Amino acid sequence: MKMISELTDHEHVEGQFLVGNVSKGVNTVGGSYFSVELRDASGNISAKKWDATLQDEQIFIAGNVVSITGETNKYKDQLQLKVLTAELVPLEEIDVERFVKAPPVAKSELIKRFNEHKDSVKNEDCQKLLNYFVKKFGDSLFSYPAAVSIHHEYSSGLLMHSVTMADIASSLCKIYDADHDLVVTGCLLHDMGKMIELEGPIVYKYSTEGKLLGHISIMAAEIRKAADELKITSEIPVLLEHMVLSHHGQLEFGSPVMPLTKEALLLSLVDNLDSKMVVVNKALQDVEPGNFSNKVFPLDNRSFYKPNK
Amino acid sequence: MKMISELTDHEHVEGQFLVGNVSKGVNTVGGSYFSVELRDASGNISAKKWDATLQDEQIFIAGNVVSITGETNKYKDQLQLKVLTAELVPLEEIDVERFVKAPPVAKSELIKRFNEHKDSVKNEDCQKLLNYFVKKFGDSLFSYPAAVSIHHEYSSGLLMHSVTMADIASSLCKIYDADHDLVVTGCLLHDMGKMIELEGPIVYKYSTEGKLLGHISIMAAEIRKAADELKITSEIPVLLEHMVLSHHGQLEFGSPVMPLTKEALLLSLVDNLDSKMVVVNKALQDVEPGNFSNKVFPLDNRSFYKPNK
Amino acid sequence: MKMISELTDHEHVEGQFLVGNVSKGVNTVGGSYFSVELRDASGNISAKKWDATLQDEQIFIAGNVVSITGETNKYKDQLQLKVLTAELVPLEEIDVERFVKAPPVAKSELIKRFNEHKDSVKNEDCQKLLNYFVKKFGDSLFSYPAAVSIHHEYSSGLLMHSVTMADIASSLCKIYDADHDLVVTGCLLHDMGKMIELEGPIVYKYSTEGKLLGHISIMAAEIRKAADELKITSEIPVLLEHMVLSHHGQLEFGSPVMPLTKEALLLSLVDNLDSKMVVVNKALQDVEPGNFSNKVFPLDNRSFYKPNK
Amino acid sequence: MKMISELTDHEHVEGQFLVGNVSKGVNTVGGSYFSVELRDASGNISAKKWDATLQDEQIFIAGNVVSITGETNKYKDQLQLKVLTAELVPLEEIDVERFVKAPPVAKSELIKRFNEHKDSVKNEDCQKLLNYFVKKFGDSLFSYPAAVSIHHEYSSGLLMHSVTMADIASSLCKIYDADHDLVVTGCLLHDMGKMIELEGPIVYKYSTEGKLLGHISIMAAEIRKAADELKITSEIPVLLEHMVLSHHGQLEFGSPVMPLTKEALLLSLVDNLDSKMVVVNKALQDVEPGNFSNKVFPLDNRSFYKPNK
Amino acid sequence: MKMISELTDHEHVEGQFLVGNVSKGVNTVGGSYFSVELRDASGNISAKKWDATLQDEQIFIAGNVVSITGETNKYKDQLQLKVLTAELVPLEEIDVERFVKAPPVAKSELIKRFNEHKDSVKNEDCQKLLNYFVKKFGDSLFSYPAAVSIHHEYSSGLLMHSVTMADIASSLCKIYDADHDLVVTGCLLHDMGKMIELEGPIVYKYSTEGKLLGHISIMAAEIRKAADELKITSEIPVLLEHMVLSHHGQLEFGSPVMPLTKEALLLSLVDNLDSKMVVVNKALQDVEPGNFSNKVFPLDNRSFYKPNK
Amino acid sequence: MKMISELTDHEHVEGQFLVGNVSKGVNTVGGSYFSVELRDASGNISAKKWDATLQDEQIFIAGNVVSITGETNKYKDQLQLKVLTAELVPLEEIDVERFVKAPPVAKSELIKRFNEHKDSVKNEDCQKLLNYFVKKFGDSLFSYPAAVSIHHEYSSGLLMHSVTMADIASSLCKIYDADHDLVVTGCLLHDMGKMIELEGPIVYKYSTEGKLLGHISIMAAEIRKAADELKITSEIPVLLEHMVLSHHGQLEFGSPVMPLTKEALLLSLVDNLDSKMVVVNKALQDVEPGNFSNKVFPLDNRSFYKPNK
Repeated sequence: MKMISELTDHEHVEGQFLVGNVSKGVNTVGGSYFSVELRDASGNISAKKWDATLQDEQIFIAGNVVSITGETNKYKDQLQLKVLTAELVPLEEIDVERFVKAPPVAKSELIKRFNEHKDSVKNEDCQKLLNYFVKKFGDSLFSYPAAVSIHHEYSSGLLMHSVTMADIASSLCKIYDADHDLVVTGCLLHDMGKMIELEGPIVYKYSTEGKLLGHISIMAAEIRKAADELKITSEIPVLLEHMVLSHHGQLEFGSPVMPLTKEALLLSLVDNLDSKMVVVNKALQDVEPGNFSNKVFPLDNRSFYKPNK
Repeated sequence: MKMISELTDHEHVEGQFLVGNVSKGVNTVGGSYFSVELRDASGNISAKKWDATLQDEQIFIAGNVVSITGETNKYKDQLQLKVLTAELVPLEEIDVERFVKAPPVAKSELIKRFNEHKDSVKNEDCQKLLNYFVKKFGDSLFSYPAAVSIHHEYSSGLLMHSVTMADIASSLCKIYDADHDLVVTGCLLHDMGKMIELEGPIVYKYSTEGKLLGHISIMAAEIRKAADELKITSEIPVLLEHMVLSHHGQLEFGSPVMPLTKEALLLSLVDNLDSKMVVVNKALQDVEPGNFSNKVFPLDNRSFYKPNK
Repeated sequence: MKMISELTDHEHVEGQFLVGNVSKGVNTVGGSYFSVELRDASGNISAKKWDATLQDEQIFIAGNVVSITGETNKYKDQLQLKVLTAELVPLEEIDVERFVKAPPVAKSELIKRFNEHKDSVKNEDCQKLLNYFVKKFGDSLFSYPAAVSIHHEYSSGLLMHSVTMADIASSLCKIYDADHDLVVTGCLLHDMGKMIELEGPIVYKYSTEGKLLGHISIMAAEIRKAADELKITSEIPVLLEHMVLSHHGQLEFGSPVMPLTKEALLLSLVDNLDSKMVVVNKALQDVEPGNFSNKVFPLDNRSFYKPNK
Repeated sequence: MKMISELTDHEHVEGQFLVGNVSKGVNTVGGSYFSVELRDASGNISAKKWDATLQDEQIFIAGNVVSITGETNKYKDQLQLKVLTAELVPLEEIDVERFVKAPPVAKSELIKRFNEHKDSVKNEDCQKLLNYFVKKFGDSLFSYPAAVSIHHEYSSGLLMHSVTMADIASSLCKIYDADHDLVVTGCLLHDMGKMIELEGPIVYKYSTEGKLLGHISIMAAEIRKAADELKITSEIPVLLEHMVLSHHGQLEFGSPVMPLTKEALLLSLVDNLDSKMVVVNKALQDVEPGNFSNKVFPLDNRSFYKPNK
Repeated sequence: MKMISELTDHEHVEGQFLVGNVSKGVNTVGGSYFSVELRDASGNISAKKWDATLQDEQIFIAGNVVSITGETNKYKDQLQLKVLTAELVPLEEIDVERFVKAPPVAKSELIKRFNEHKDSVKNEDCQKLLNYFVKKFGDSLFSYPAAVSIHHEYSSGLLMHSVTMADIASSLCKIYDADHDLVVTGCLLHDMGKMIELEGPIVYKYSTEGKLLGHISIMAAEIRKAADELKITSEIPVLLEHMVLSHHGQLEFGSPVMPLTKEALLLSLVDNLDSKMVVVNKALQDVEPGNFSNKVFPLDNRSFYKPNK
Repeated sequence: MKMISELTDHEHVEGQFLVGNVSKGVNTVGGSYFSVELRDASGNISAKKWDATLQDEQIFIAGNVVSITGETNKYKDQLQLKVLTAELVPLEEIDVERFVKAPPVAKSELIKRFNEHKDSVKNEDCQKLLNYFVKKFGDSLFSYPAAVSIHHEYSSGLLMHSVTMADIASSLCKIYDADHDLVVTGCLLHDMGKMIELEGPIVYKYSTEGKLLGHISIMAAEIRKAADELKITSEIPVLLEHMVLSHHGQLEFGSPVMPLTKEALLLSLVDNLDSKMVVVNKALQDVEPGNFSNKVFPLDNRSFYKPNK
């Protein structure tokens, strides 16, 4: 089955799509219709479902995967899809491959770097904890996104973020004489609570536990539990719990304590730096030189400028 | 040995005292002396140690318990103590009974009410967790103070606070149709992390773990660990972790999440109410009617007014 | 005449309705129509007025009471009302009984408890002031809502709030050794300024005086005026003025002074507690266990979770 | 009796002085002495009371007026006063003329301008209210300071502030087409609550009522009471109450409502402007060109620069 | 060609219009139409362009000037315009006279007062800088608006603001003994950075440089550059740079330093006063006495009340 | 002449010292003395000047360099200095070598890296501006401290900070695809305004111009001026002005605009990171493992923990 980017005019379409933004309209004779954005990993297409039924209301909800038959047509030079039939796809029948974007760096390369960073950690207690969590979370660790995602997020975002941070932070350890093992372990572990905070597949949403506790508290508690099971008696687990708890850097950003060790401060600064740079890069990617981006919500709603070459 | 409140003029003194505020003075011939506030459970007395030695500097530190010989004298109608000899008392030789104030309600009465509240909880998972922690923390649970204490704090403050909250909150559960078992369990557990956050004896200070993690995160993690050990599979532990995490009510007060259940909201409101009322009562206790108190730091540094009868 | 909850399909309708949300649509031939939410105390119904006239624009305004003839019909299993004629009902002809929801506790029961609390006050100056205001505001005191209301508010909300606060606060007076007479008088008087701040009937809106002065300053000034007329020379009126002025607890919530007496602090804490618990109960009332509520504006826009049984 | 500025070396002194900052010292033989700043309207002098007695502690308190005998002497080119005897002066025996600084503009001139502004108001209800309060507060109105004063404040500060504001605001009424009568009445009345908020004589402090209610709420309530007594039925009293309540401009500065009329906004802006300009002038008055002032607390603790000529 | 305010019913229309708010509608047969607000200096008119083409999408953009043919008709007593043809007008062909509103005071009168203020400045370095910038910016200085403008702004707004400020501030210099030459020069120069921050014509928008630097930093740098070119060695340029940098009064309003001289403080207070009074006057201009205005965004979204006469 | 760290007991001392904290004491016979901290690059020593003269008051001011004769003695195991004579050293006679600490990396090495970074910039306009400022500021550029300094600051702090930032930022350019030339030029230029904001020698204080304008606005204006002189017409100067203006990242930290380009964002993040890491390293340098540092003012007054090895 074709991907969205491959569709042409006047084509019959059958396949699975992810539902994006939905709006409902009313025509003059009192009937309603849906304007729906459909997506797969290759792109988006506008679709109309005329003569909307009550059942359609339960299908066309952002985040659902639907199986659709329809026909393409052009309206003002833009390809549209007229939906003829639509059905909800059960979780187990979703063709996951159609929906997840590949990360900008190959997943295998990221896993390799993750393992190199893990192997660079020589402290035994750090090692034990790293091994514990790699085993606990398994392969999902390498495919989870970095954030709630309706669009734009790619798979392995969590891995990409952790590995980039470890790259940067390990070189900063030398400049600022910080403990390499603590910092690198912190980079690899700090966001793993998202494996419990978010639940998938395809469209990751906050789990109830995630909303009630947050990934920060979840992961700090998991380290405490692990240290107990692994019978670690050194200060390492408390230091790592502290790094996880404080990595958002400010109480008002959800950290219950502020960084109080050099290593925790460094972790929070690098997390802040990577998060913001990733956001600004995403915001600028489709902007022409000499223009401003749309407003970027996580960066105080500013518009960013792309200089002329 | 006499307590401070029993001392009279021109008396020889021998006994243990808790060191309060200390200031060092210099006389014109280059020698130094210490002005020291000495305390026991019955009150305070100003003391002077003339011709201070280097060793004195390590003894007269706020929070130490010292064994002193000296003599009382009156200066401007106020009893003072001239210190002759002073020695640091090793932890194991401290006569704890001399220093801890009794709570305003008898400890045995508080324990009785604690147990009544515990027994009123019918939910099995709540019961299991309550029993787990009563066992884990043991008798200290009933003698811990409610806060870091240099002065004014009495023993069993933690118990007093938890029991008062359970008294109030259980009657509010009826008014607002909240879950009695969750709320009462929350009242009894919510501050138990202070058993790890603070360390004593006599003068309780923040432990390193307490500073790095805080009692909120410590206790939430302990519940998570306990639920695991007790193999509880219901939603109860997550709801209680949430109540503990959110009970300061605001991110800027150290809660990583805000209350998101009716029971968590009620817990945080009653905690806020009891904490503030206890503070205002302490501030007003020695104020004459028609006068204002000193500035009360935890209440925005306001001075409170005691109305005329 | 039938209430909304009693209407069935294909029925001729005549009666008074309260106008809720209104939106105007345009059809393809340039004409306009109104989609209107109509309400009475029993519920809501969607209505359409086709071929809207200029006069209709002045009738279908949220908060108006309109006299309507029309016909019911079903659209997608939901009862709708096609409006044939609509006229504005003059204030004096409004059938008030059709619109006010009964409070959750019977009004007579609330009045009884109000009077019991009033009678429990022994201080003469407090008594005089209570009697003054009960007489001044008359029966409206027992039917006013607690807040500006377009929907959801029931009659006697002000009474319900004051009585619940007096219930809670009078029992807290014993726990915290606060002055019962001041606190109970404060509970009963504190929001009476809303009798001037808001004006009805049915749909209560801010009066001009209410917007320019606010119920806090209005009521404090009324107490000052009353004390003058009643020739009260004790400190009581100033203490009550202070309690009214400070009961929002923070300058940024509209209190010009913060609570500076134990009784004022208690009043503000109980007001805060009751207001928030009432809001969370309203937010959760139609939520299924295991789900989150809509965002609750007065509670920082949070969604609240209703635990599974 | 000589004023401080007239004293010379080796002179015998007898007279009343206002006590300013006090500090207590201890000499090596255990006795104490007081270093006291003594003031009158002409300036300050440093004084020492050696061999301080218990009675001295109750006399040398900032704000007291004391009757002193002593001798002047020079220490490092600066005149000092050695106190021989000191007694507290009863309120009724205070020689007020010795202590109050004259305002920078003659009081009679200020009263003349006050009356001219008052006469410029043509609206009858404004006139009635102005006359009511001029009568109520009497001559004190023309001698009150503008703020709590330990030093630097001169008498008639309240009058000076109100008249300057009326000068400025009446000319701005023309520029911005604001109602002259409301604005001028607002300027003259807005701070009169300080007559009740502060109590003197000589050293003005907050009264209990002042602390519990604040001059803003006091004056708004007084206008409401006056309007009742004067049987004014127009909108004028509510507009003036609003202007008084909102004249601090922001909730966090103690105004329970923000300015919501053009006239209230203008009043608050001119009040802000005059208050800040008076503060900056006081801060710069003794600063040499090319230098910075001390930190100015009410202006965010900034130091102000006086440019070179 | 007629202005909008002169149009009558059933009239053929040809002329240039400024595009205001635009909304796009869809009819039941899938076609679209535009509802457009068209403006000139005399007022607004609603227009419809049926059967919208792809080209129309590029023409009907807020801020464009379009050349239109059409016909007027009345709908519900309101004149509308049915657009037949529409074309974008190239910048150089815009009939600017049709679009700019005259300021409330005649431009020639404003220029006269500007020059009088300029001539009242006696300090040579201030004179040099004033002449430099009057020459640099030329006639545009007298026609620039005071802010980004889609509607309501009139030409010469910048001049009007500067001259009004100089009027007020020069009289305040006498009251507060501030340096007339610095203050008046500051009033005339302070906002000239807007000549670079905004770019026109007709509809003024932020330039890229304006967004990246802001008019405050631009003007301060221009003064520094000018002082260099003019070889001024006195303190005057630094004092004026400081006044420009600090005139927004607070860091959070975009001033990198707060006012630290009396003259800078006065400038910022008068700027604040004039800006707010102009906004409130605009908000109240079409409000009937006894009513509230719409919400005023730059004044905390408050609604302002116009008192009854 | 010996450095402080080389002094021993009972030694005659002659040499230049930097005055640190000063406190004045009074002895019982009315005379005064100074307790003074004296410093050179090797450390500190406590000194006493007994029988203080009026002249001493003008000499012992923090920041002065004084020429002293005296004698060392031991008091409680600590070396002290009894000052016999003291004279102010004129600026031109100060032996600068005695006072400036060497940076942790050799100055020559830092200059080498500065030049390597400068040479890595290929954009011509960036090159021109870099050369302009290296020439303008001359050798001082390589010896200026990074901040106002009474103690702890070493020479070449500004250079050290700029070079470290360039090291980090140039490697981040690759990770985040940012413009190397803009970022590196920004790192090297961003704090050069401190050359004008601060003035030395030895003890650097804010200049009047520095206080009134701030290094951010000074440097942005200098770039604008330089671009004019160098006749640069590209967008480069505006982009660099923007980077300088926004590098504090937030309006409340003194940046008049927030970062609006990827390169400006990166610069502000790296500046934030380096500043904080340098502060935390300084705070922890003398802390024993397992202990907390003193409170660190620029990091929210937190105490930092140094983990056990």
